[in-house]
Amino acid sequence: MSKNQNDFVKEITNIDDDFARWYTDIVIKAELADYTDTKGCIAIRPYGYAIWENIQEYTDKKFKETGIQNTYFPVLIPENLLNKEKDHIEGFAPEVAWVTQAGENNLEERLCIRPTSETIISTLYSKWLTSWKDLPFLYNQWCNVLRWEKETKPFLRSREFLWQEGHTIHETAEEAKERTLQMLEVYADVSEKLLAIPVIKGKKTETEKFAGADETYTIESMMHDGKALQAGTSHYFGQNFSKPFDIKFQNREGKTEYAYQTSFGSSTRLIGSLIMAHGDNRGLKLPPRVAPIQVVVVPIAMHKEGVKEKAEELANNLKEKFRVQLDDRDQYSPGYKFNHWEMKGVPLRIELGPRDIENGKCILARRDNQEKIEVELCEVTTKVNEVLEKIQESMFNACLERMNEKTTIAHNMDEFKSSMDENQGFVKSMWCGSAECEEKIREITGAKSRCMPFEQENLGDTCVCCGKHANKMVVWGRQY
Amino acid sequence: MSKNQNDFVKEITNIDDDFARWYTDIVIKAELADYTDTKGCIAIRPYGYAIWENIQEYTDKKFKETGIQNTYFPVLIPENLLNKEKDHIEGFAPEVAWVTQAGENNLEERLCIRPTSETIISTLYSKWLTSWKDLPFLYNQWCNVLRWEKETKPFLRSREFLWQEGHTIHETAEEAKERTLQMLEVYADVSEKLLAIPVIKGKKTETEKFAGADETYTIESMMHDGKALQAGTSHYFGQNFSKPFDIKFQNREGKTEYAYQTSFGSSTRLIGSLIMAHGDNRGLKLPPRVAPIQVVVVPIAMHKEGVKEKAEELANNLKEKFRVQLDDRDQYSPGYKFNHWEMKGVPLRIELGPRDIENGKCILARRDNQEKIEVELCEVTTKVNEVLEKIQESMFNACLERMNEKTTIAHNMDEFKSSMDENQGFVKSMWCGSAECEEKIREITGAKSRCMPFEQENLGDTCVCCGKHANKMVVWGRQY
Repeated sequence: MSKNQNDFVKEITNIDDDFARWYTDIVIKAELADYTDTKGCIAIRPYGYAIWENIQEYTDKKFKETGIQNTYFPVLIPENLLNKEKDHIEGFAPEVAWVTQAGENNLEERLCIRPTSETIISTLYSKWLTSWKDLPFLYNQWCNVLRWEKETKPFLRSREFLWQEGHTIHETAEEAKERTLQMLEVYADVSEKLLAIPVIKGKKTETEKFAGADETYTIESMMHDGKALQAGTSHYFGQNFSKPFDIKFQNREGKTEYAYQTSFGSSTRLIGSLIMAHGDNRGLKLPPRVAPIQVVVVPIAMHKEGVKEKAEELANNLKEKFRVQLDDRDQYSPGYKFNHWEMKGVPLRIELGPRDIENGKCILARRDNQEKIEVELCEVTTKVNEVLEKIQESMFNACLERMNEKTTIAHNMDEFKSSMDENQGFVKSMWCGSAECEEKIREITGAKSRCMPFEQENLGDTCVCCGKHANKMVVWGRQY
Repeated sequence: MSKNQNDFVKEITNIDDDFARWYTDIVIKAELADYTDTKGCIAIRPYGYAIWENIQEYTDKKFKETGIQNTYFPVLIPENLLNKEKDHIEGFAPEVAWVTQAGENNLEERLCIRPTSETIISTLYSKWLTSWKDLPFLYNQWCNVLRWEKETKPFLRSREFLWQEGHTIHETAEEAKERTLQMLEVYADVSEKLLAIPVIKGKKTETEKFAGADETYTIESMMHDGKALQAGTSHYFGQNFSKPFDIKFQNREGKTEYAYQTSFGSSTRLIGSLIMAHGDNRGLKLPPRVAPIQVVVVPIAMHKEGVKEKAEELANNLKEKFRVQLDDRDQYSPGYKFNHWEMKGVPLRIELGPRDIENGKCILARRDNQEKIEVELCEVTTKVNEVLEKIQESMFNACLERMNEKTTIAHNMDEFKSSMDENQGFVKSMWCGSAECEEKIREITGAKSRCMPFEQENLGDTCVCCGKHANKMVVWGRQY
């Protein structure tokens, strides 16, 4: 490693010394986002936003394939609307920002900036719905929301964040429940196929479900340090909103009925999960499918005749199939450039120098495992494609392996506590279903219930906490 | 016209009786948007939002071709930042909404919801910029903004609206000015090529320019009733923001210099321009390139054997090339469906009945001029393509013709006033350059200066208002 390289790496905190600082170092150094004069709110820089655009494009396409349409509802919600569903307002009131003045005037009624849009959307669903023939409404919006968090962290917990929120209403409870699960599958697909992060799919406990929901489903993933990240949630509301908001329709029997409702959301927090699931001491590490730049071409000994031109030709050819950047900046050395693009997590670097050109070859350098591969220039497109697919796959497998390694089974609280302290991963255990045991587990181990996975395993029939009869297997973990 | 059709058309106000009411009728009946419980803010429904998505996709691609990258900056701006540029705060303060409370607490400093983002973005540009080597920054964001308008109208003047705002900084004034004009060309392209609405490109007068800008450029289009709509603006700031916000860099000579800045914006108001430029008494009329549905296939005598299947086959074939909707709903008559899709402005309808199928033909019905064309089923794809292109072109030409017809030349205020009263179109005249004459013209005729067009004509050398020496030709018009 050259001096240059060492200097560069020193600029970020070691990942195993202080993961939280490493994380914010990466956010800043990889130019994903920055702090702003608006406390608790970040600015998403072009490189970070390009990741978000790729996530949006992929998710939006999946949504539309299931019939979802995009819409836009007001960012401001009158106070009386927010108050209509009891559990909902209790959940959100403490973290809502209020507009009370406009121009020189005080407003008659406070307006909150949406923390989520169930209430305002429900008023319009009530207006638009007449008959079962109108159903379902399968609407989504990509927008900003605001939650006045006390402790913030770029992407993971920001007062303002970007997300999509889907809101659907249906003729029957069954259809709504099906939609809830279908959307969870989309989220699992986004995380696993696009972001290369394996997830556990399951149902939230009563304590952890969304304010106002009957059922909340979640995908949970594990980060580098073993902590859990909730990467997307999908809620079944039953008629909890349709009754107070009067969303009713004439059903097939000619009778008036309240609609069955769902909502589901995923956010820029996914960028945080990308950083924390894949990153290392050299910086960000992006899976090829979501990477804004998939391949960077770095010419070596650029002053030598023909090198710059050949590198440009190579980059241009690859641009037909991949997202490619040519780094032919004069003022920086190849070593500096290597580090720069490693920090930015570009999955594949191509090095091309005078000797390579002479031999009709170039070097592919993988970001994920530092492997270098010499390939013939004439077959570079095929090889790049192969290697990118391999990178995507092995990044997923590395995460999966870590999750498996750091997941243990606990039959009692001693096992639970020692495993959580040593490992800080996931613990699987049986649970009786009581909120008291959940609370006690949190106090003792710092772990919360992540979910009751769809794939239940039988680990006995007694609760890990109280020892009473238990028939639910829960995955527990400390969280972001 | 069947009874059915008459009923449907009666549901909207006649366009020549009350254009303003006709407009809001179309917004509601074509299901573009709806009023909400948040006063002055609309909900954009799927059909309206799909138009916006097409505008976004087209514009975003053009932007990116010129090197622009997307970003995201906070929606909340601390009061002290908004106050830093004097003209800017004077322009925006009366229409800004203020957040003063969060959860149970009063904030120490008020935060405004962005009416535009020059101030918050400038603080970050100041942080990120060091050397001329970093320049230019060519950033844009797609987001919501809020301006507390007293009188609102869906899409045209809504308290909250969606837009893009581009913000760039440059090494030299020349480069920044070039960018300002380049972006205006993108807006002209969007309006003319995508929306089929011709524009006049020009520079705003001092009175009409953006709060804080040195120069504002605009594209102005003419609506059905002859009034003007400003469809996109591009601003050159010089160093007006870079000085108070300390956006400086080391220039090529090693000296510290303030950057040269621009901004440019276009919004969901473009949807309003589509409605008002093209619509008629049958409803919305969309140019094919921006229409969410380009072709609707309506089977006739759907109960007859094979009709439904053949219509489906036809629709599926066309879907490979066009955005196609098959309307095979059992509960509605063909007449009802014709009206429904005409109201929604779908450019082309294909009718297919048992006799057509027997003859291997179908009927194409143009929305723009009601023309019906019989075509062989075997060449329907080619024909649809041809007809859609023709529709796009003739919709543009129809608007251009109207703009030319309703544009007159005035040499004195009598000519000006009588032309504006008879015509309510654009008036071209010479102008001395004084704000007093502008104000007087507005008082007498209700018209404001739209712009000083790039294509200047010599209409004499005396001001239409004061008769003094004048060397600027201005286009005037009443506005939305």
